[in-house]
Amino acid sequence: MTASEIRPARPPFIGCGAAYEDAKFVIFGAPFDSTASFRPGARFASQAMRTESRAIETFSPYQNRDLEEIQACDAGDLELPLGSAARALDEIEAFTSRLLDDGKIPVMLGGEHLVTLGAVRAAAIRHKNLAAVQFDAHADLRDDFMGETLSHATVMRRVWDILDDLGGGIFQFGVRSGCKSEFEWASGRVSTERFKASGIEKAAEVISDRPLYVTLDLDVLDPSEFPGTGTPEAGGMAFAELLDAIIKLSGKNIIGFDLCELSPHYDTSGISTAAACKILREMLIAFG
Amino acid sequence: MTASEIRPARPPFIGCGAAYEDAKFVIFGAPFDSTASFRPGARFASQAMRTESRAIETFSPYQNRDLEEIQACDAGDLELPLGSAARALDEIEAFTSRLLDDGKIPVMLGGEHLVTLGAVRAAAIRHKNLAAVQFDAHADLRDDFMGETLSHATVMRRVWDILDDLGGGIFQFGVRSGCKSEFEWASGRVSTERFKASGIEKAAEVISDRPLYVTLDLDVLDPSEFPGTGTPEAGGMAFAELLDAIIKLSGKNIIGFDLCELSPHYDTSGISTAAACKILREMLIAFG
Amino acid sequence: MTASEIRPARPPFIGCGAAYEDAKFVIFGAPFDSTASFRPGARFASQAMRTESRAIETFSPYQNRDLEEIQACDAGDLELPLGSAARALDEIEAFTSRLLDDGKIPVMLGGEHLVTLGAVRAAAIRHKNLAAVQFDAHADLRDDFMGETLSHATVMRRVWDILDDLGGGIFQFGVRSGCKSEFEWASGRVSTERFKASGIEKAAEVISDRPLYVTLDLDVLDPSEFPGTGTPEAGGMAFAELLDAIIKLSGKNIIGFDLCELSPHYDTSGISTAAACKILREMLIAFG
Amino acid sequence: MTASEIRPARPPFIGCGAAYEDAKFVIFGAPFDSTASFRPGARFASQAMRTESRAIETFSPYQNRDLEEIQACDAGDLELPLGSAARALDEIEAFTSRLLDDGKIPVMLGGEHLVTLGAVRAAAIRHKNLAAVQFDAHADLRDDFMGETLSHATVMRRVWDILDDLGGGIFQFGVRSGCKSEFEWASGRVSTERFKASGIEKAAEVISDRPLYVTLDLDVLDPSEFPGTGTPEAGGMAFAELLDAIIKLSGKNIIGFDLCELSPHYDTSGISTAAACKILREMLIAFG
Amino acid sequence: MTASEIRPARPPFIGCGAAYEDAKFVIFGAPFDSTASFRPGARFASQAMRTESRAIETFSPYQNRDLEEIQACDAGDLELPLGSAARALDEIEAFTSRLLDDGKIPVMLGGEHLVTLGAVRAAAIRHKNLAAVQFDAHADLRDDFMGETLSHATVMRRVWDILDDLGGGIFQFGVRSGCKSEFEWASGRVSTERFKASGIEKAAEVISDRPLYVTLDLDVLDPSEFPGTGTPEAGGMAFAELLDAIIKLSGKNIIGFDLCELSPHYDTSGISTAAACKILREMLIAFG
Amino acid sequence: MTASEIRPARPPFIGCGAAYEDAKFVIFGAPFDSTASFRPGARFASQAMRTESRAIETFSPYQNRDLEEIQACDAGDLELPLGSAARALDEIEAFTSRLLDDGKIPVMLGGEHLVTLGAVRAAAIRHKNLAAVQFDAHADLRDDFMGETLSHATVMRRVWDILDDLGGGIFQFGVRSGCKSEFEWASGRVSTERFKASGIEKAAEVISDRPLYVTLDLDVLDPSEFPGTGTPEAGGMAFAELLDAIIKLSGKNIIGFDLCELSPHYDTSGISTAAACKILREMLIAFG
Repeated sequence: MTASEIRPARPPFIGCGAAYEDAKFVIFGAPFDSTASFRPGARFASQAMRTESRAIETFSPYQNRDLEEIQACDAGDLELPLGSAARALDEIEAFTSRLLDDGKIPVMLGGEHLVTLGAVRAAAIRHKNLAAVQFDAHADLRDDFMGETLSHATVMRRVWDILDDLGGGIFQFGVRSGCKSEFEWASGRVSTERFKASGIEKAAEVISDRPLYVTLDLDVLDPSEFPGTGTPEAGGMAFAELLDAIIKLSGKNIIGFDLCELSPHYDTSGISTAAACKILREMLIAFG
Repeated sequence: MTASEIRPARPPFIGCGAAYEDAKFVIFGAPFDSTASFRPGARFASQAMRTESRAIETFSPYQNRDLEEIQACDAGDLELPLGSAARALDEIEAFTSRLLDDGKIPVMLGGEHLVTLGAVRAAAIRHKNLAAVQFDAHADLRDDFMGETLSHATVMRRVWDILDDLGGGIFQFGVRSGCKSEFEWASGRVSTERFKASGIEKAAEVISDRPLYVTLDLDVLDPSEFPGTGTPEAGGMAFAELLDAIIKLSGKNIIGFDLCELSPHYDTSGISTAAACKILREMLIAFG
Repeated sequence: MTASEIRPARPPFIGCGAAYEDAKFVIFGAPFDSTASFRPGARFASQAMRTESRAIETFSPYQNRDLEEIQACDAGDLELPLGSAARALDEIEAFTSRLLDDGKIPVMLGGEHLVTLGAVRAAAIRHKNLAAVQFDAHADLRDDFMGETLSHATVMRRVWDILDDLGGGIFQFGVRSGCKSEFEWASGRVSTERFKASGIEKAAEVISDRPLYVTLDLDVLDPSEFPGTGTPEAGGMAFAELLDAIIKLSGKNIIGFDLCELSPHYDTSGISTAAACKILREMLIAFG
Repeated sequence: MTASEIRPARPPFIGCGAAYEDAKFVIFGAPFDSTASFRPGARFASQAMRTESRAIETFSPYQNRDLEEIQACDAGDLELPLGSAARALDEIEAFTSRLLDDGKIPVMLGGEHLVTLGAVRAAAIRHKNLAAVQFDAHADLRDDFMGETLSHATVMRRVWDILDDLGGGIFQFGVRSGCKSEFEWASGRVSTERFKASGIEKAAEVISDRPLYVTLDLDVLDPSEFPGTGTPEAGGMAFAELLDAIIKLSGKNIIGFDLCELSPHYDTSGISTAAACKILREMLIAFG
Repeated sequence: MTASEIRPARPPFIGCGAAYEDAKFVIFGAPFDSTASFRPGARFASQAMRTESRAIETFSPYQNRDLEEIQACDAGDLELPLGSAARALDEIEAFTSRLLDDGKIPVMLGGEHLVTLGAVRAAAIRHKNLAAVQFDAHADLRDDFMGETLSHATVMRRVWDILDDLGGGIFQFGVRSGCKSEFEWASGRVSTERFKASGIEKAAEVISDRPLYVTLDLDVLDPSEFPGTGTPEAGGMAFAELLDAIIKLSGKNIIGFDLCELSPHYDTSGISTAAACKILREMLIAFG
Repeated sequence: MTASEIRPARPPFIGCGAAYEDAKFVIFGAPFDSTASFRPGARFASQAMRTESRAIETFSPYQNRDLEEIQACDAGDLELPLGSAARALDEIEAFTSRLLDDGKIPVMLGGEHLVTLGAVRAAAIRHKNLAAVQFDAHADLRDDFMGETLSHATVMRRVWDILDDLGGGIFQFGVRSGCKSEFEWASGRVSTERFKASGIEKAAEVISDRPLYVTLDLDVLDPSEFPGTGTPEAGGMAFAELLDAIIKLSGKNIIGFDLCELSPHYDTSGISTAAACKILREMLIAFG
C-alpha cells in the first residue's frame, strides 16, 4: 500500500470497517524495526493486532461507548524498505500527509518508535504550533545512537528539532530509562515526568487547544502487563493508569496518534497484543 | 470416570488425598472447551494443576491453616465428549448430582466456563433459593452466541434462567468486558460490580445463609498474573484482591464451587497454573 | 463470510490476489476445531498461513512455475459456530456448493480434519463417481468417537459412507496410527498404504479420470518437520516425499482439495506454518 | 512411593492399567536430574509421558499388536532426593530389586541417564552374565566428571565396572559425542557403533540368550525428532531406525529396560514427549 | 575460574568492566541448581544477565547516579560440580574468602538459593556479629528436605546455625510460603515479615552498623514481574517496593550480597532477566 | 571491538581460547540483521553460540580430531550500527582486512547473510582469483530488494559483482527458493545446484587451488533440524549431508568462512544453536 493507493485490510481491526471516504480515523501499520538496538520484531505488531482483535469486544465498559459508533477505517499496512530508515520515514510521511490532506486523523501502528518521526513531519507542516504527548519508558532524546541520527533512541530529539521552531512542546510521561546526558539535555527543554503520569491533567491544561499528536510507546506499560516489547523496563505503568491518562486527553485537539513497540513474537502468551488491541479501542473512543 | 464409578487420581492434587468416603470436598476435572470462541486449551487445566501442585506448600500463611486439616478427595477427571456441549453438561450434572447426594461439596476444575452450568443444574434442584457469586472478566450474559445457546459466552445467562425462578441472585465481580446489550440486559437483573470486588462484603450480607455456589473464571485476574487463559483482558484483579474477596466469603453456606478457564499451554512460564493451585488451596481452606 | 457474500482477504495468501470472478481456485478458511480430542488450535491455521505466506516466494523451483500464473482468489475465512459440528459442516457445505456451482475449484484451509466432510458432501452431489485421496497419519475411520459420529476421528468413515454408494474410492497414504478395529474394518474397503506414499502412482492409474478430491491432513508429515499439529505421530513423511506424491497427482481431474490440522500456536518456531504455505503453493501449481 | 509400598498412578500410562499382581512389566518414574551438566529437566519426563500418552493409540501398526494384550502396571513415580546422587541410586536399586524379586520386568522412566546405574546394580546381582544394550548419542564412559564418579557422563563406565566381572558386555549404538579419552578407553572394552545401529542384529546374535538390560538414552534420536532433551546432538537416528533396532531385540531375554533424558519443558511443541510415549509402547509390545 | 585464578568475563555485565585490582565490588556467577526441588535452571542466570545487560542503561533515574561511577569487576563464573552440593559450597566459600581477603565486596549471582551458604560461611568467619537481610518468597528454614540438610529449602536454617553463635540476626521480608513447622520454628528466632517489606526501616535501625549480608531470592518479586524462577509464588512484591527497600539499606555496612533463583529458560519473554539486571544495577549503586 | 582493538571473548567459544597472536583462525561475531525482510534476530547468534558451546565436546568423532589441536581465537563481537547497512559493512570489511593482513583466517558468525559482503570485499582485494562456495536455501541473487541494493536478498549478487572481475566463481548448493528472475539471471553465470550438494566434489575439483571463501547460510539445513532462522524453507539438507560436503572441502585453499542466519530466539528448544556450534567445530577441524 502506498499514499496513492489505499487498500483497506480485510478483515480489519475489529470495529474499524468503515470505508475510507466515511472515516474520521484511518489506521495503518508501519512495519519497520531496523534500528531497534536490542530485540527487533515490532514489524509484526500491526498484523498481529488485526488478527487478535477479534478477542476483544467493541464496547468499552470504561467509557460506556462502542467502537462501532466511531468511524474508523483500517487501511492495512505500508510496505516499507527494511534496512533503510530514511526511505521508510519518507513513505510514512507521504502516507500521513495524504491522510491529513484528506481530513483524516492518522492512527499509526508501529513498528519501532522511529516511525513516529515520519508522521510528525507530515503533521508539523500542516498544524502550526503542534504539541506532542509521549508515553514511554525511554526518553528517546539522544542526539545520535552509535553514529546514527535516525534511530528509535533519537526519535523524540528529532521530533523536538521540528517542534521547537513551532513553539516547543513535548510532554513525556512514564520515563524510567535513559542515559545521563539525555536527562541533562532534557532539563528545561522537555517536560518529563518520571515513572508516572500524574501530571497529565496539568499538561492538558497547558496544551489547551493546540493541535496535539499523541505517541504511545507501549513499553511505558509495566513488563508484567506488556512483556512483548523490544526493551522491557521494570517498574512501569499499570494499564489502569495509562487508560486514565488517555481518557484525560479526550476533548483535546488531537490530530494524530500512534502505538509503537509491540513485538508480539516475544510474548507467546499473547497478553501484550491483547492489551495493545484494548488500548487502541479506548484511544479511538476517547479521541473520537 | 463417571458418576457410577469414582476413580481418585494418584497422585492427587497436593494435600487432597482423602478417601471419597471421608471427604467433605470432592475435586474433579471437567476437561471441556469446545465452545471457546478464541483460544481453546482449558481442557488441560485440571491435570496441569494436579501435576504442578507439588510446587506449593499445603500450609496457608494467609489463613494460618493447613490444607491437610481439610478432608478433600481428588476424584480425577471426567471423560467428556469434546464437540458436544449438551452431552458434556449432562455428564457434569450427573456427576455433581451424585456428589451432592453423597453429601459432598463438589469442587470442579474446568474447562471453559460453560461447565459451570452442569454443576449449577445439579445444585439448583437440590438447594432451593440457590445464589451464585461469579468472579469473571466477562459478563457471560449473552442469550446466544453465533446462534448457540450453550456457550462460554452465555453460561451465566443460562444460570440466571435457572436461578431466577428460585429467587434470583447472581453477584458478579471484576467484570470488564461484554457487549453493550449484555450490560443493558443485566441492569436491574444481575448485581454486577465492574473491575473490582469491593462490594463483596455487602453481597455476603445480602446472601446471608442462602446456599451459595461460587464460580471463579480465573480470567478475572490480571493477565500479568494469569496469562494462561483463553481471552486475557487487561486491567484485572490482583491475586491479593481476589484472595481477600474469597476469604470474605468464608462462613457462607457454600454448597459447591469451581475454577475455570486456565489454559496452561498458553503460559509456558507456568505462573498461571501455579496461581490456580494456590487459589484452590485457599478456597478449600476458606470454605472448609 | 457466508455463501451469499464473498469477502476476499486483504492482503491475501501470497500470489492469490485474483478476483473471484477470474479465479480457477478459490481458497477459504474453515476455522473449526471443536471435536479435536487432544490439542485444539487448528482454528488459527488459515489466518496464520495468510500472514506468514509473505516469507515464501511465488516461484516453485520444484515445478519451475510461478503461482502468479495460476488464477487463485483468497476468499478469506468462514465464520463457523464453535461447539456445533453439525452447523459448521452445513456452513462449509453451503459455501463449497456455491463455489462448485460457480465453476471454481474449492481449496479449503482447515481447521480440524472434520471440515473435509462438509466439502465432500457438496462435491459428491455434483460429481458422481467421486474418489478421494487422503494423506494422513491417522486412519480417521472410527464409526463413532466417544459416542459422537461427527468427529475428526470419524471423518473418513463418514466420507466413505457417502462415496461408497458412488462406486467407492478412498486411497489413504502415510497412515501410522489407528485403533485395531479401524484397520480391521478398512481391510477390503479402503485402500490404505501405511507409513509411505510409494503406491501413489498406481492409485493415480486406478483413479484414472474420475473426479478426485484430495484431503491433506498435514500431520502426515513427520513431527520434526511439522510439530504444529494437534496429534503429532513420530515416523512420518518427509516434505520431499509428500511433494513428490502431490506432483504425481497433477493431471488428475481434481475438483477440490484441502489442507487440515495445522495448529500454529503449538509451534513457536513457525516452521509448520511455513511448510504448510509452501505445500499450498505447490498444490496450486501442481493442480493448476 | 517406595519399595515397600507400591502406589500405582491413576490415570496410568495409556494401556498400562494392570494390577501389580498381574503385571509382567512394571513401569516406574525415576525423576532425578541433579548431575545434568547442561540443561536439567528430565525429572519431569515420567509424569509428562503419563499425561500425554492419551494422544497415542494402544495399537501398534508396526507390530500389529495392541498394548492391551501386554500386562503392564504403571506404578507411578519414586520420590527421590534431588541433589544426592548416591541416595537416589540407592532408592532406585531398592525398588528395582523388589520388582525383580517379585518376578517383574522393571521399566524405568528417567530422569537423567545416571538412574540406569541403580537399576543395573539390582539386576546384576540377580542375573549373572548380564549384558547391556545402550542407545545413546553420548558414550557416557568418563571415569569421573568434574571430580564426581556418579554422573550422567560416567554412568556406563560404572555399569561397565559392574558387568565386567560378569563377563563384560556393553553394546553401544548411535554414539556421536564423547571426549577423545573416552573413545580411546572404550576401544577393545566396549562394543561401540558410531552414529547408527546397523550392527544390532549381529549384537543380538552375540548376546544370544544372556539376560539383557536395554538402556535407551532418548537423545540418540535426531534433535529434529527429539528436541526436548538436555544435550541435543545433531546427526542422530531417525525414529524408524531406532524402532527397527528395538524390534530386532524382540525375542531376547530382556530382564529390564529404561528410557531416559526426555526433558519435556525444552520442547513446547510436545513432539519429544509424544515420540517417547510411542517408543515406550513399541518397546513393551516388542519385549512383551 | 577458581579462587586462585580470576578470569574476568568479556564482555562483562554492563558498566562492570573495572579491573579486579581497582574494583570495590566483584561480581561472580555461581551456576549451581542441583537441589532445586521443583524447576531447575538457575544455573543459567549469571550468563543470561551478562548477555541481556546491554539492554539497560548504566544510569539510574531512581538514584540519579551512574553505574560507571562505581568500581565493579565482573569476574565471570565459577565452575561448580553439578550434583554435589557440599563440594560446590566449598568452592563458593573459597572464592568468596579470597575476595574478602582482598578487600572486595562479593556480589554473587546464583544459582539456586543454597549458594548463599557458601558466601555466608566465608563472611561469618571474617565479620563477627554478621547480620543477614533476606528478601524471599519462601522461608527456607527447614532443618532438612527429604533427608538432605544442604538444600535450597534449608539454606537460611544453615545460615541461622552460623549466625546464631555470632549474635543472631536474620531479617526476612516478603515471605509467603513455607510449611507450618518452619513458621513455628521461626517464631522468636527469626524476624519474619510476611508478604511485604514495610518493616525495612526499622530493621535497618536495629542492624545499625553491624556488618550486613543481603541475600535476594528474586522469587520475592511477584510472578507477573518475574516469571522466570523455579517456584513462582503468587502475591509477591512489586519492583518498586523491592527497589525502595534496597535503597533504604544504602548506608548500611554491607559486606556482600547476592541475587538468586533467576531461571531464565522459564521466561521466553526475557522480562525476568531484564528485571534482575536492573536490580543488580540499583543494588550496586545503592550499596556503592 | 574494532579493527584497531581486539578484545577476545571470555569465556570464548569452546576450544577457541588461543591468543590472537598464536591463532590460525580468528572467530568474530557480526551482530547485524537490519535488512532481514521476514524475521530478524540473527544479531543474537554469535553470543548464543558462545554460551551454548559448552554443551558440545571439543573432539569430533566424525574426523577423529580435537578442536584443541587447532589454534583458534574467539575475538568477540563487533559493535555494528543497527539500521545502517553501509556502515556495518564498512566495519566488517575493516576488521576482516586487519585479520587477513595479520595472516589470520577470518571466521565470521553472522548476523544476516548480508554481512558476508563485508568480509568478501576485504578478501577479494587481497586474494586475486577468489572463488566462493555458498550453502544456502535462497539464491540471494536479486539485484535489489524493495529498492535497496544492500540486502540479505542481494548479497550474493553483490559478491558476484566483485568476483566476476576476478574470474568469476560462485558455487551454490542447496538452493530451494528464489524468484523466477533470479534463477534466470543465474543461468550461465552462477553454478547452482538445487536442493542438494552432490556436486561438491566436482566443484572442489574445478576450484582447484584458487583461494576460496565459504559462506554458510545455515538455513540450507532442513527447518526440522534448524528451526531457529529467519526464513525457514522446507525440504533442506540434513546435517550429515552438509557435514559431508564441508569435509569434502578440506584441503582446499580456504582463506575465510562464515556461518549466518542463526536466529536463536525463534528456537526455544535450542537445537539450532547446538547444531550451529557443532558445525563450527567441524569446519574449524576440516579447514584447520
